[in-house]
Amino acid sequence: MPKEIERKFLIANDDWRKAVTHRVQIRDGLVAACEGRKIRVRFYDQRATITVKGRRNGLSRDEFEYDIPPADAEAMLRDHCGGDVLEKTRHHIHHAGLDWVIDEYFGILAGVLIAEVELPFEDMPIQPPDWLGREVTGDDRYRKINMLIDRRNALAAESA
Amino acid sequence: MPKEIERKFLIANDDWRKAVTHRVQIRDGLVAACEGRKIRVRFYDQRATITVKGRRNGLSRDEFEYDIPPADAEAMLRDHCGGDVLEKTRHHIHHAGLDWVIDEYFGILAGVLIAEVELPFEDMPIQPPDWLGREVTGDDRYRKINMLIDRRNALAAESA
Repeated sequence: MPKEIERKFLIANDDWRKAVTHRVQIRDGLVAACEGRKIRVRFYDQRATITVKGRRNGLSRDEFEYDIPPADAEAMLRDHCGGDVLEKTRHHIHHAGLDWVIDEYFGILAGVLIAEVELPFEDMPIQPPDWLGREVTGDDRYRKINMLIDRRNALAAESA
Repeated sequence: MPKEIERKFLIANDDWRKAVTHRVQIRDGLVAACEGRKIRVRFYDQRATITVKGRRNGLSRDEFEYDIPPADAEAMLRDHCGGDVLEKTRHHIHHAGLDWVIDEYFGILAGVLIAEVELPFEDMPIQPPDWLGREVTGDDRYRKINMLIDRRNALAAESA
């Protein structure tokens, strides 16, 4: 069964920008999130996917991803994601044998930078790049849904 | 955009059984259901699908369906549907130019029979077959999730 094993980190400094090999623009929407499972629609340049992610279990979760027609993805992002469509640039970096991505958010999450590395097995050792900050794997504050809620609350407080 | 326009009925008598042209065994699981949207995994004989259904709007709802590898469907039904996998025989009947299905449930919903007809547009007139009972389109009591809850409560009351 397909599994996603992932660790997530903050960013310590801007040195990562020099190491980027390529970038992809991504729009993400959550069609549903309940009981720890989520169903995400993602739009890349010319490619769209739907992904079912199972409940997290330690660093791992089952993940099922399928290509779908871009027009379907557009319709789902527009009509079936409750307005929560996130835009980000995904920066790819190769470091010490592993593929890292740094997600740089725009829109409501502007300013947020999160580094992630996908691992072939849970206890694989990693050599942290110099720009890597604190690990936030499993820290609920850095789940997208909670960052969104925090940002909305901050905006509401500013405008109050 | 793909749309599902559907009316749902009870069954008045057993005469429909003589009109069945073919049958399919189906297993359905809900990966997620929230805010009126649902994501269903369905397993037919040799075919498996994932379906995103949008919020209902009158008789209509947006529907996006994709074939997926049967092994993925098996894994999702087993691990990511909260135990609520429904088994039914879907009986197909052609009547007065329309394709009707009658779903005959097994397992926890044993005994439940629901007829459905999919329509090309909302106000299309239908000629009801003789075996057709009361319409229950939009009646929350006949939503699968509520029939399941009712049946579980009844079983709990019996065993109390």
